[in-house]
Amino acid sequence: MNPARPARGELAARLRLIVITDRELARPREVTDVVAAALRAGAPAVQLREKVLPPRDTLPLARRLRTETEAARALFFVNDRLDLALAVGADGVHLGSDDVPVSAARRIAPPGFLIGYSADDPDAARTAVADGADYIGCGAVFPTNTKKDAGRAVGLAGLARVVEAVDAPVVAIGGIAPASAAGVFRAGAAGCAVVGAVMAARDPGHVVDGLLGAGGAEVS
Amino acid sequence: MNPARPARGELAARLRLIVITDRELARPREVTDVVAAALRAGAPAVQLREKVLPPRDTLPLARRLRTETEAARALFFVNDRLDLALAVGADGVHLGSDDVPVSAARRIAPPGFLIGYSADDPDAARTAVADGADYIGCGAVFPTNTKKDAGRAVGLAGLARVVEAVDAPVVAIGGIAPASAAGVFRAGAAGCAVVGAVMAARDPGHVVDGLLGAGGAEVS
Repeated sequence: MNPARPARGELAARLRLIVITDRELARPREVTDVVAAALRAGAPAVQLREKVLPPRDTLPLARRLRTETEAARALFFVNDRLDLALAVGADGVHLGSDDVPVSAARRIAPPGFLIGYSADDPDAARTAVADGADYIGCGAVFPTNTKKDAGRAVGLAGLARVVEAVDAPVVAIGGIAPASAAGVFRAGAAGCAVVGAVMAARDPGHVVDGLLGAGGAEVS
Repeated sequence: MNPARPARGELAARLRLIVITDRELARPREVTDVVAAALRAGAPAVQLREKVLPPRDTLPLARRLRTETEAARALFFVNDRLDLALAVGADGVHLGSDDVPVSAARRIAPPGFLIGYSADDPDAARTAVADGADYIGCGAVFPTNTKKDAGRAVGLAGLARVVEAVDAPVVAIGGIAPASAAGVFRAGAAGCAVVGAVMAARDPGHVVDGLLGAGGAEVS
C-alpha cells in the first residue's frame, strides 16, 4: 500500500489530474516512459487501463507503475480489474457499469482502498457514491475517439449536474486538453482524467504542466 | 461464505466431481436448471465459467449458483475472476495461466478461500501448489471441443505424472464421460471436472450418477 494514500478530505486535490495509460497511443514509446515524464511534471495520479491483454500479461506493467507512482507519491489506480488492483497493491480501482459493482468491490477491498466509478448522469453518480465510491469519473465531457463506448458527450452542463449531485470529487474525462481544462474546473470538477492528451503528446510533461495550471491554484 | 467449506484433508472428496457451467451447451435450458439437476444427483462442486459476458451481467447467475450450491452443501467456484468470486462469497476461484497469479490471489483472498489452478505438466503444477493452490485442474486428459485453447490432450499417463508431482488433489478435465471416468480415478485423480458431459446431457442427473459411481467408493 502507498503511504501517500490520502485521507478523504485531501482526495480531491490528489485527483486534480489522472493520467490514464494507453499502449497504442504511447507508441513508439513505452507507457512507462510517458508516465515517468508525467510524474516528473507533477501528475498526482495514474490509472492503468488495459483492455486487450489478460491480467497475467498486464501484471509486470502494473507492478512497475505501482513502484514508480509510489516513488513519486502519486496515486495509482487500475481500471476495471479489482483483482489486479489488489494484487499489485494499487491505491484504488476505477470501475464502470460492466465491472463488479461498487458495493461488492467495497466489501472485498481493504480499508482505505479507493474506488472510482464512471457515471455520466446524476442518478448513477448518486447511487455509486451511496454504494461506496470515493470519486466519480464523469464523461465524455467533450467528444473523444479514445474510448469507443463512451456514448455522446455530456458537455460542461452535464458535468456540472453530476458535480451538484454528489458529495464526492468528480473527475472529468473525455477530450480534455490544456486549452479546455479551465472550463472543466469552472464547472466544478475536482480534476480531469486524460488519455490521448498525455499519452500521444510529443512532450507529455508540458501537457501535464498545462493541465495542472488550468484551474488556477497549484496542487498542494 | 459456505459453512460447508472443507478442511484441507477432506477437500479431495469434495472435488470428486466439479460440474462446470456453459450457457451455450445448456440450451435451451437455463444453466441453473441443469445445475439444479446435478446438485440433486449429488454433485459436490460447481464451477461458473463465463467467457463472454462481463462481470456485471454474470453476477446474478453467480449469486444464484452460490445460493443453490450452499443449500446443497456443495462447493462453488468461479472461473478466472477472483473479484467476482469474492463478490458473491464463492468458496474458491479457478485460475489459469492468463489470470492473476496464484501467489497474488492467495495474498488477496480471505483465509480458507480455495484456489484451483490449471496445469497440464508436473512443473507448472508443483509451482502452483508451492504458490498456494489448493488443487490442480489437469487436462485436457482426453480430446475435447469445449475449450478451444486446451491444447493437445495429455492422456492418462500425463495425468498420472501430474498426480505424482504434487501433494494436492488433482482434478482431471477434458472429454471425460461416465465410461472414461474410471480410468481417470485409476490414474490417481481425486475427481473429474466436466462441461459438456453434464451441460449438454439429456438427463444431467443420470450422468452425474455415472460419474460419481465411476471410482467405486461413494462420496462421503
